Amino acid sequence: MAFRIGIEDLRDIAVGATFLGTGGGGDPYIGRLMAETAIRDNGPITVLEMSDLTDDMWIVPSAMMGAPTVMLEKIPNGSEMIDAFERLRARTGQTISATMPIEAGGINSMIPLAVAARLGLPVVDADGMGRAFPELQMVSFSLHGISATPMILVDERRQQVSLDTMNNTWTEALSRTATMVMGGSSSIALYLMTGAQVRAYSVPHSLSHARHIGERWRACKSLDEPMERLIEALGAYRLFDGKIVDLLRRTVAGFARGEVAMEGMGRDQGHGMRLDFQNENLVAVRDGEVVASVPDLICVLDQDSLLPVTTEGLRYGRRVTVIGLPCAPVWRTPVGIRNVGPRYFGYDVDYIPIEMRYGHEPATRY
Amino acid sequence: MAFRIGIEDLRDIAVGATFLGTGGGGDPYIGRLMAETAIRDNGPITVLEMSDLTDDMWIVPSAMMGAPTVMLEKIPNGSEMIDAFERLRARTGQTISATMPIEAGGINSMIPLAVAARLGLPVVDADGMGRAFPELQMVSFSLHGISATPMILVDERRQQVSLDTMNNTWTEALSRTATMVMGGSSSIALYLMTGAQVRAYSVPHSLSHARHIGERWRACKSLDEPMERLIEALGAYRLFDGKIVDLLRRTVAGFARGEVAMEGMGRDQGHGMRLDFQNENLVAVRDGEVVASVPDLICVLDQDSLLPVTTEGLRYGRRVTVIGLPCAPVWRTPVGIRNVGPRYFGYDVDYIPIEMRYGHEPATRY
Repeated sequence: MAFRIGIEDLRDIAVGATFLGTGGGGDPYIGRLMAETAIRDNGPITVLEMSDLTDDMWIVPSAMMGAPTVMLEKIPNGSEMIDAFERLRARTGQTISATMPIEAGGINSMIPLAVAARLGLPVVDADGMGRAFPELQMVSFSLHGISATPMILVDERRQQVSLDTMNNTWTEALSRTATMVMGGSSSIALYLMTGAQVRAYSVPHSLSHARHIGERWRACKSLDEPMERLIEALGAYRLFDGKIVDLLRRTVAGFARGEVAMEGMGRDQGHGMRLDFQNENLVAVRDGEVVASVPDLICVLDQDSLLPVTTEGLRYGRRVTVIGLPCAPVWRTPVGIRNVGPRYFGYDVDYIPIEMRYGHEPATRY
Repeated sequence: MAFRIGIEDLRDIAVGATFLGTGGGGDPYIGRLMAETAIRDNGPITVLEMSDLTDDMWIVPSAMMGAPTVMLEKIPNGSEMIDAFERLRARTGQTISATMPIEAGGINSMIPLAVAARLGLPVVDADGMGRAFPELQMVSFSLHGISATPMILVDERRQQVSLDTMNNTWTEALSRTATMVMGGSSSIALYLMTGAQVRAYSVPHSLSHARHIGERWRACKSLDEPMERLIEALGAYRLFDGKIVDLLRRTVAGFARGEVAMEGMGRDQGHGMRLDFQNENLVAVRDGEVVASVPDLICVLDQDSLLPVTTEGLRYGRRVTVIGLPCAPVWRTPVGIRNVGPRYFGYDVDYIPIEMRYGHEPATRY
């Protein structure tokens, strides 16, 4: 059943999206401001559930591409996505019925809300990742053979790039370099799908799930032992308590790569953890042993605020708790693991679902 | 009056295009082979003169973009430009009546002939440079405010990039990086114009001029003192006789940059010349003094073959004669000099027409 999202819902969704961002995807703060402004100007947004989608609707995910640090300084003026949707309509002859997030984490959880309010379209409660990933072909749609193209990129000068490629890895390469030339960020529309395809191929309940996480975070943070309560409430695994003692960052081919070393505190006194990231957190290694890896979610929580720290926000001396969460089931299939598992990112380890690493049965539902 | 070009005309045009390439634009050899094949399969090409163009025709230049060295190994399969023209037609709703060269020199003098034969279109006897230049905004059309976009790039995998930008410098930047991602070369269609615009804004007689140069070269090379006869016949200036003694090359941002040092021989015994290039030859310096510069044409002729040497073909020890030729008048206007004069390429010297450097009145006709 379709429901509505107003300004009052955005705060919880943004907090949840920070968890699902797993360190990357950018701080949803700027996206939340854009969505707030758009809802204030245009009224609340209609959210469609899977059962609301008819087979022949045309739905197009909307997002921003590029470095989150640049997006903060180069805020879209709102006309970009109008131009992008209009170009897609002209190209395909199809009227677009709704938009949706391509990823559930970070700034791109909020962009479709701003787009939906501004264009007077509903947004679908689903996405293509159930989290954030660094590359655009890393979506459930790709695994089912959906092409990212025709893809439209628009910059704040209203310049447009349209792509038609042979596969989504080419689309990633061409759109990434175009975005870099455009100054480091662009507004994108891609993966045009029918309602039937969205129902069959997307990760459902993204917005509801983010809101649910945000609500639990809000409820837990005023309790005694809030970190314990939050971990319980989220069904998360506590991977490490410690403080950041070393940090290495470098920007490689448009990505923020790096690693962070932590020294154990409290129950982890005497132990150490290393965490590697490429925009998002990739692999957590405790005393030399992998304890969690992509595609499962790894979040670094600040012990004071209980909020996830983005990889840009990692600082020497910060006291953190690292938690792990199971990913959406689509990523645990052989083709899912091949596309976003640890080996794709250059690690010579097999993917083991986080529940199994901690002696539990793997979850069958997300 | 329209005329026809058959396979037998291609050799002279290709030789002329090597002169107009001024060291860059790639060896027309591969383009000639493509044009030969296309004419053999489809018959001779109709060439339109300016007086044959009606105001409301739609004409689109066709070319290849990228490193000539890559083009040699990644020959277009012929379908690229069919796709590009079809996309332009779908985008604009206009039927394309003819194609034309964007530059008169190098491989791009021949590509439109191959395209014309394959698509059954006429080609216009005109271009946008009257020579070759390294960047796509360096055309007479730009000086008159014609947008390069909508521009279509297609690669040999039939992948497409469409651009709509705010100016032709942005188009250059976005298309150059897209071409690099596509593997170093692409087939392009851009600067869509009406017949009235082509008549008003292009450099006329490109193909005739190239053929004329080729014919004179062929006539001169069997004479006594062929270099003297050729220089006379072309109305060229002899800048230097010498041999190559040093050569520096580097590839910077997709361009072949470098400089070549020559030691004088014969009448230039005891003197020296340095020649700088960015794909094309830019500036010739004799004993520390500039003797020719862009936008005028600087060609390095092999003393044995009398053929121009492309910048890729420069070799230590080669005996050469450097000649200069006046550029098309459009480049001698203040806006022309600003766009392609020596200062644009980073040289702190004023442009002086080559005729004036040698004590003559500047030519008023090209």
